Amino acid sequence: VGEPTRPADIAVIAVPAGRVAPVLAEHQKRGTARVYTDVSGVKVRLHREALAHGCDLTILVGGHPVIGRGGPAPRGDLFEGCSWALTPSESTEIRALNHALEMVALCGAVPVLLDAEAHDRAVALVSHAPRLLASLAAARFLDGDESAVRLAGQDLRDVTGTADGNPDLWTDLLTANAGPVADQLDGWAAQARSLAGELRDVAHSGDAARSVQLREAFRQGAAGRGRIPQPRDATTG
Amino acid sequence: VGEPTRPADIAVIAVPAGRVAPVLAEHQKRGTARVYTDVSGVKVRLHREALAHGCDLTILVGGHPVIGRGGPAPRGDLFEGCSWALTPSESTEIRALNHALEMVALCGAVPVLLDAEAHDRAVALVSHAPRLLASLAAARFLDGDESAVRLAGQDLRDVTGTADGNPDLWTDLLTANAGPVADQLDGWAAQARSLAGELRDVAHSGDAARSVQLREAFRQGAAGRGRIPQPRDATTG
Repeated sequence: VGEPTRPADIAVIAVPAGRVAPVLAEHQKRGTARVYTDVSGVKVRLHREALAHGCDLTILVGGHPVIGRGGPAPRGDLFEGCSWALTPSESTEIRALNHALEMVALCGAVPVLLDAEAHDRAVALVSHAPRLLASLAAARFLDGDESAVRLAGQDLRDVTGTADGNPDLWTDLLTANAGPVADQLDGWAAQARSLAGELRDVAHSGDAARSVQLREAFRQGAAGRGRIPQPRDATTG
Repeated sequence: VGEPTRPADIAVIAVPAGRVAPVLAEHQKRGTARVYTDVSGVKVRLHREALAHGCDLTILVGGHPVIGRGGPAPRGDLFEGCSWALTPSESTEIRALNHALEMVALCGAVPVLLDAEAHDRAVALVSHAPRLLASLAAARFLDGDESAVRLAGQDLRDVTGTADGNPDLWTDLLTANAGPVADQLDGWAAQARSLAGELRDVAHSGDAARSVQLREAFRQGAAGRGRIPQPRDATTG
């Protein structure tokens, strides 16, 4: 973001999540642009901090382009067909929202409007919690002996594929979205414990027909997997 | 397996896990081969059932080729470079084991010797538990609203990639390996609960510096991920 002689249509504050509010406040003071957005992955904190920094919320539209893997190399079609969450607050003017929508359209992305709370719950569900789980799965290999590790196949490489992300970056993001992520983790823990209980019952009784929850978990998993958009869905749907 | 006039060197009992022992007993009675192996994914049960069916354990070598994804199309290099677990028991003759090793070598695979208990704990760690977790992650999308699902990216497609497996096949396998899988699930549940507790503390105190466990989980995940063999490692390692 430069310092133009007259305000730009829209300024994209593309700095780490914890720095967005102060940078935004400074640029609003200078009058850099008529509308502001950002690209950070957690939105409730942004709106709270922007308020605390005395920012003008009428011309702020929170933004989060979902480009998948942590840090792809910049390229022209980076946003082509991807979802781009926009989180206007109750204070946001419709004019400001339209500027943000136009920018998203120019990038070839598909806008998804959400309030900040719904956005943060959604990313806890679709990204933060599954990522943490993948890291926990990968961490178990630090204990496994060499023979066990050699039995790992493509399945495990897929499930743990995100575990090589930057630990500090992801710790910061999940920490900024602590409540929704904790809700997801509690849900997982309850399911895992319940399934472990059923499996112990099966092991003890020798009655395989008691694997009712387990079968249902695999069935629902297959059904849920079918709802996850595939790479090209976004451009056609 | 045909019925040769003189015994084959080795017979591979390639039937569903629950059918291996009776089919093995029948072929040993007929004298189909001088050594027997199988390709099922759980080995403690096989050895127990083979004993119960009165099989000759001196000429049995449990086998489990790790070919990754559930059901690839048959092709000549299906086993090339993959790990092939062999689980001889204390009764297995060295001659029988050598026949099995020769077969694995002819398939271009890398043998991994384990006792049946270690094998089943290993597959619970590297395959059964992570798969179930992936299915639980995917199942959460049945509840998520449409906007949330649209924020899913490549990360989530990877983490849940195995969830489209056959629910009945995987229920049978995990049920046959109930104890070790339950141990893994209990471990997960404890970790998830502990992390949820830390995150709630962070959310309540507003003190991001308290995310100690979370950061450690991501760090260990990155380290553990580095131990998982990559596709071509098996042929060079």
